[in-house]
Amino acid sequence: MKVDRFEISRYSIPLLHPLSDATHGVIRDFALVTVLVRTRDGLEGVGYTYTVGSTGGGAIASLIAEDLAPIVVGQDPRAVSSLSQSMWRATHYVGRGGPASFAISAVDIALWDIKAKAVGEPLWRLLGGRDPKVPAYASGIDLNSSIPELEQSARIHRERGFRAIKMKVGKPRLVEDILRVEAIRELLGPDAPLMVDANMKWGVHEALRASRALAEYDVYWLEEPIAPGDTEGYVRIQREGPVPIAAGENLRTVGEFEKMISVGAVAFPEPDATNCGGVTAWTKVSNLAEARNLPVTSHGAQDLHVSLLAAAPNPSYLEIHGFELGPYLEHSLPIAGGYATASERPGHGIEFRWGELRPHLVE
Amino acid sequence: MKVDRFEISRYSIPLLHPLSDATHGVIRDFALVTVLVRTRDGLEGVGYTYTVGSTGGGAIASLIAEDLAPIVVGQDPRAVSSLSQSMWRATHYVGRGGPASFAISAVDIALWDIKAKAVGEPLWRLLGGRDPKVPAYASGIDLNSSIPELEQSARIHRERGFRAIKMKVGKPRLVEDILRVEAIRELLGPDAPLMVDANMKWGVHEALRASRALAEYDVYWLEEPIAPGDTEGYVRIQREGPVPIAAGENLRTVGEFEKMISVGAVAFPEPDATNCGGVTAWTKVSNLAEARNLPVTSHGAQDLHVSLLAAAPNPSYLEIHGFELGPYLEHSLPIAGGYATASERPGHGIEFRWGELRPHLVE
Repeated sequence: MKVDRFEISRYSIPLLHPLSDATHGVIRDFALVTVLVRTRDGLEGVGYTYTVGSTGGGAIASLIAEDLAPIVVGQDPRAVSSLSQSMWRATHYVGRGGPASFAISAVDIALWDIKAKAVGEPLWRLLGGRDPKVPAYASGIDLNSSIPELEQSARIHRERGFRAIKMKVGKPRLVEDILRVEAIRELLGPDAPLMVDANMKWGVHEALRASRALAEYDVYWLEEPIAPGDTEGYVRIQREGPVPIAAGENLRTVGEFEKMISVGAVAFPEPDATNCGGVTAWTKVSNLAEARNLPVTSHGAQDLHVSLLAAAPNPSYLEIHGFELGPYLEHSLPIAGGYATASERPGHGIEFRWGELRPHLVE
Repeated sequence: MKVDRFEISRYSIPLLHPLSDATHGVIRDFALVTVLVRTRDGLEGVGYTYTVGSTGGGAIASLIAEDLAPIVVGQDPRAVSSLSQSMWRATHYVGRGGPASFAISAVDIALWDIKAKAVGEPLWRLLGGRDPKVPAYASGIDLNSSIPELEQSARIHRERGFRAIKMKVGKPRLVEDILRVEAIRELLGPDAPLMVDANMKWGVHEALRASRALAEYDVYWLEEPIAPGDTEGYVRIQREGPVPIAAGENLRTVGEFEKMISVGAVAFPEPDATNCGGVTAWTKVSNLAEARNLPVTSHGAQDLHVSLLAAAPNPSYLEIHGFELGPYLEHSLPIAGGYATASERPGHGIEFRWGELRPHLVE
């Protein structure tokens, strides 16, 4: 089996409602780059990645077309471990992060799709999973929402069956964050997991102050309190603060996760297979977490990550992210009773509705 | 003063002779991305970056055109500190490394060129330098050369006035490296600085074994013995090995340099302004090095780095790299008696010969 050709498309997907967090401000769209990897005997692997606010979409598409396709075309797509290494090596000087990590991710996801389709298995089963159901949480990108709007969203999430909810923090004054968290904790009751995400807003001291104040509301995890590169800062917030720390959406290599995990900087590693190197890298991070007796969670791309968390021996909650691909997918992700269920279709089961995407194509 | 428009070009520059090192194997060309930043009142800043073997050139050009130009156009180009921060922030999710660092570098270099031209000063003088002369070394990319070829190159370098020479190491067996280093040390005599560069070939133990063996030949620095992300490994090689360590060409943010410098992982930091964030970032790294009582050196791009080392209070030797832009420049870098001299022209003084570049344009 040999790879024959790549088809790469780039879209700018508008959000139905503008979203907001402490770093990106108001977000109105996201870049989606898709890659179809076709084999000579007619198998097709679907890969994709996305960025915030359309930045870097052209660079990612260029890397896939010019730098990665020549490495993969003509090769057996099932040799994912070897092809992943070849892609990382070929982009070493200009890669190891940034758009190169996104580009490799998209191709790697397509290769795993082919690999699972070639044996007629859903990806989660190929990866060794037993049960396609994973617990999920509803993730709000809602820093600009009022407290009544937050409460209304929380009620809708509960009606959809979610027990666990995440909300943004990082308002100009901590007391505002606390009032918002208090309101949602009251609405959810004492048992439901409530996560918060600061999107790198704070320094170490602000984060520790917030962690102590948030602990009173039994916050399940505090996500990205500070900038991703400050590993020592993360270690302090983990050790000295009462709330466990989640981070990972801004780490771009397995090595970056290894550094964070090995020094105890993070309690909930959250690799995103669309930006840290695909299924290959996500699984390596999951294994690092397990070896450290940690769970693994995910960031965004729930339609893919449901399969990876279903296969992981140490899953935490799957994020159901606000960058929804739902309207552009043939099969929406089934969510009921607080669980998402990975598909039984061969591969990762994601099929794009190309006609729906076409109006958002960036030429 | 406002930026009016960007002109971006991308080239694949063939090398006159194939070069070779322990990681990239044989190298036959490199990607060059140039950016002209024009102001409404007619000033023009020249920026550029390059990669190894043409990888990532399209991604870099795309980032400059689509993601960075909109940030800079309409702004005062002299506000480089603020514009640099804006570029890093805008690319945070998809950047902080990889092609994004190269793209920001090229734009930042062009902005500094304008800033110096606007006051009619050469860049090295604007940055606070007193003397445009900096000591330089001839850098061989010569792992595949035979010992007689190495000796012949060393003689030519000496005839051109160089006292200091760098050669590649990382042959399959250490004894081969040692025989090669021995031959060149013998030719140079005991006083001339002789650097070696392993291009990340080794693990920590191999690097320490090499460091001990190389010390007998009074090697001035051992460059990139191991992969760039293994900070703890670098610390061990620095502490336990006798030869001081140089590294930096594969670090892509000031934060990565801060980590290496603060823990004592490197004796000769070698930022490359074309891939770590331009003149702004290079100067910050130089300041970090000085604060740690370390010299600063450079990687590649000698036509630019001569101005930065001439302005630094703590310069080590300027690398004269094998990726020569000479045939494509209006003014070749003056080198005599082992010193390179920065130009007195306003700006960084680099002017491309566009007609000579045109045959290598990648459309």
